[in-house]
Amino acid sequence: MTARIGIVGAGLIGRAWAIVFARAGMSVCLYDVDAGALDKAREAIRQSLDDLRQAGLIDEVDAPLALIQTESDLARAMASAEYIQECGPENVEAKRRIYSDLEAVVAEDTVLASSTSGIAASQFTDHLRHPERCLVAHPVNPPYLIPLVEVAPAPATSEAAVSRTMRLMEQANQAPILVRKEIQGFILNRLQGALLNEALRLFRDGYVSAEDLDKTVKHGLGLRWSFMGPFETIDLNAPSGVVDYGQRYGPLYRDVDRQRGNDDPWEAATLGALDEERRAQLPSDGLADRQAWRDRRLMALMAHQRSVSPT
Amino acid sequence: MTARIGIVGAGLIGRAWAIVFARAGMSVCLYDVDAGALDKAREAIRQSLDDLRQAGLIDEVDAPLALIQTESDLARAMASAEYIQECGPENVEAKRRIYSDLEAVVAEDTVLASSTSGIAASQFTDHLRHPERCLVAHPVNPPYLIPLVEVAPAPATSEAAVSRTMRLMEQANQAPILVRKEIQGFILNRLQGALLNEALRLFRDGYVSAEDLDKTVKHGLGLRWSFMGPFETIDLNAPSGVVDYGQRYGPLYRDVDRQRGNDDPWEAATLGALDEERRAQLPSDGLADRQAWRDRRLMALMAHQRSVSPT
Repeated sequence: MTARIGIVGAGLIGRAWAIVFARAGMSVCLYDVDAGALDKAREAIRQSLDDLRQAGLIDEVDAPLALIQTESDLARAMASAEYIQECGPENVEAKRRIYSDLEAVVAEDTVLASSTSGIAASQFTDHLRHPERCLVAHPVNPPYLIPLVEVAPAPATSEAAVSRTMRLMEQANQAPILVRKEIQGFILNRLQGALLNEALRLFRDGYVSAEDLDKTVKHGLGLRWSFMGPFETIDLNAPSGVVDYGQRYGPLYRDVDRQRGNDDPWEAATLGALDEERRAQLPSDGLADRQAWRDRRLMALMAHQRSVSPT
Repeated sequence: MTARIGIVGAGLIGRAWAIVFARAGMSVCLYDVDAGALDKAREAIRQSLDDLRQAGLIDEVDAPLALIQTESDLARAMASAEYIQECGPENVEAKRRIYSDLEAVVAEDTVLASSTSGIAASQFTDHLRHPERCLVAHPVNPPYLIPLVEVAPAPATSEAAVSRTMRLMEQANQAPILVRKEIQGFILNRLQGALLNEALRLFRDGYVSAEDLDKTVKHGLGLRWSFMGPFETIDLNAPSGVVDYGQRYGPLYRDVDRQRGNDDPWEAATLGALDEERRAQLPSDGLADRQAWRDRRLMALMAHQRSVSPT
């Protein structure tokens, strides 16, 4: 099957999605109201594809690039799409308008998926004639290096829309998970938030430096989590599995849960102190180089993971 | 410098520490009151060294093995040690006795470090004549595959004991961090607990399956955390760094913090449901094979990390 994918918005996320789908051999039409943004997007996509080729993650640049069309007319861009990935502004009103516009030009069974990282699908689709084909498909940035996609339906979303989206993501070599009920922050950012909240409190209260906190994860916790996840990790960390583990460590973690307090770990003073430590490690003018380093490390990690047993 | 290391207790952790120090060229004396345990330990250590050699992480088995002596007499084992890694039972009274026994046989400036994963050093050293050379050096299991070591002094611990321990761990190619004040669970298990508490609530309340929760981390969050840690991750995830990130995402994470409730995520019913899902993915009789798989994946990840730029 060669799906026809429409992408709304040629910013960072829209471009990255174009790479994901075209890399898997799917035909993509990237839409933006701003024709200048489309030209910039094509150049940025070529550069990213070239980086992927140099990292050994794709064989060639031209084939996927040839699968990506750009278009500044919404109706022409989306008329034949089977699946649309919306990458508009993170704003309920803007999204409601985009979905109304989309509904006017697409086929009745086209799936409309949003890249939103925080807004529940029901909030921007409940005014549509066909909200049942709408849901969230939340990527991690950039999705061509981090495969997780959170598929988060609204109460009105049909099972068919969910299963088509899950299947499409698998065909595109992403790793979709199902968020079974609407919840703020979905799963990934709630887990990230829980860890960051504790991390900021430990840093703020003087138990650990920012650098040592990062070391605790990158040289400790993060190693197993990068190929197993937290439940499998604890399942393998007690002789008889998770129940045994819970009997050994549950009381400690319950105490950690109760010791949190009601203070706000994201206060400006805490962030200011963290920024001071971070800038001592990495000056502001080094951020862009370090982001490029991160992406190279992610590419090398992907290549490594492909070389070992897949599960 | 070739430090002389004493290790108290030839169980899993004691054996693993012997490998860490001997791999770095240090001379080790492994003590256990049970001479049979020492024979078993030597065979298990040889097997682990052979696994490391096959993974390309060490060049040969015989040289480190030759650096490891075993001894069932405490005074003979510890008399010439400069640093002692205690791996006794996780029990305050047992540790208090071990430290009294150790103090009677070691030189005055020998550092006494405990592998305890949960007990603060002051609780089992405040009765000693020289508590200032005592602290916690908490490894992650197994320390020869996961380099993080939490160095956690008591209020009475001297700066010299802390800095000697930090330096020794670096010489042994571990990644030590400093826990600046005593706290239950140190840093790693508090971070792990915060994430697990949220994970168990999301699973218990039907938002996500156990398998999808693990996917969220292993295909999403865990990838960057395996080489950057959580603070560097967010610092690079907003155009101007952590303060910028906090302004964008702080409100979401504050909400996650406030939505936790006071219920116990480690209740038996939740663990039972998690166990049911885990056993469907991995039957009990497959746990040992999967643990061996985990260790092979950790070895492959270490080899990968050595092959890329170190920071």
